[in-house]
Amino acid sequence: MITQTFATPQDAEQAFYKAFERADLAAMMAVWAEDDDIVCVHPGGARHTGVAEVRESWRQILAQGPGLQLHLVGNRVLSGRMISVHSVYEHLTVAGEARPANPVLATNIYVLTDRGWRMLMHHASPLVTAAAAKEPPPSILH
Amino acid sequence: MITQTFATPQDAEQAFYKAFERADLAAMMAVWAEDDDIVCVHPGGARHTGVAEVRESWRQILAQGPGLQLHLVGNRVLSGRMISVHSVYEHLTVAGEARPANPVLATNIYVLTDRGWRMLMHHASPLVTAAAAKEPPPSILH
Repeated sequence: MITQTFATPQDAEQAFYKAFERADLAAMMAVWAEDDDIVCVHPGGARHTGVAEVRESWRQILAQGPGLQLHLVGNRVLSGRMISVHSVYEHLTVAGEARPANPVLATNIYVLTDRGWRMLMHHASPLVTAAAAKEPPPSILH
Repeated sequence: MITQTFATPQDAEQAFYKAFERADLAAMMAVWAEDDDIVCVHPGGARHTGVAEVRESWRQILAQGPGLQLHLVGNRVLSGRMISVHSVYEHLTVAGEARPANPVLATNIYVLTDRGWRMLMHHASPLVTAAAAKEPPPSILH
């Protein structure tokens, strides 16, 4: 059982992406708050809420094993005493593929719990690039 | 000039979606905090930060005029004294189109300012439905 305590939101974020790269489900779930209110949205996907759903969503993703390299760009942080909101571009490279995947834009929210900083929300969405979007993107509506 | 003060995050959210439906840019920007840290992500799009960028992004969208009907479903609220995080499915219907557009999943963050509750972040992402996703969705990576 992992009992690591994260002293800062940045520590929690680093652990989150390291667990993702290593496909380590236990380490991944150790970053999340143990709370029914946690929310996780994977790119193009629906909302997962609560520990059981969020854990199952990551189990399926991480079951593919490691092989993903993540490079974070342009992290913008809005920090409070109890909550920290990060907005970051995730650049993903898949092992064996020459071209990096389209970047993903993530909103990560961390809260200070009695066990240190934990993730409350991860909302990741695909960035439709000009090359990928031959038709007008859905953003035309919104 | 609009000087409305929102007493609750719910009031701010209601004003946000009403401004969106009415294509009212002044009312839309009156909901946002007057802050360089505001962040807005439209479905499939990149990140807009700060009042000028966020305003320009909405100017382009709202220039298409009203005609959009929004129906919010499943709002999940994580509320604090100074910050409130909402996760909501936006069901959009475009005037003249029989079928509703694919739903959009939005994370909305409101903060308590000295001018009442204002929007700090809006992160909206397309929900790829089974019908829309004939190929494996990008979520396979994430």
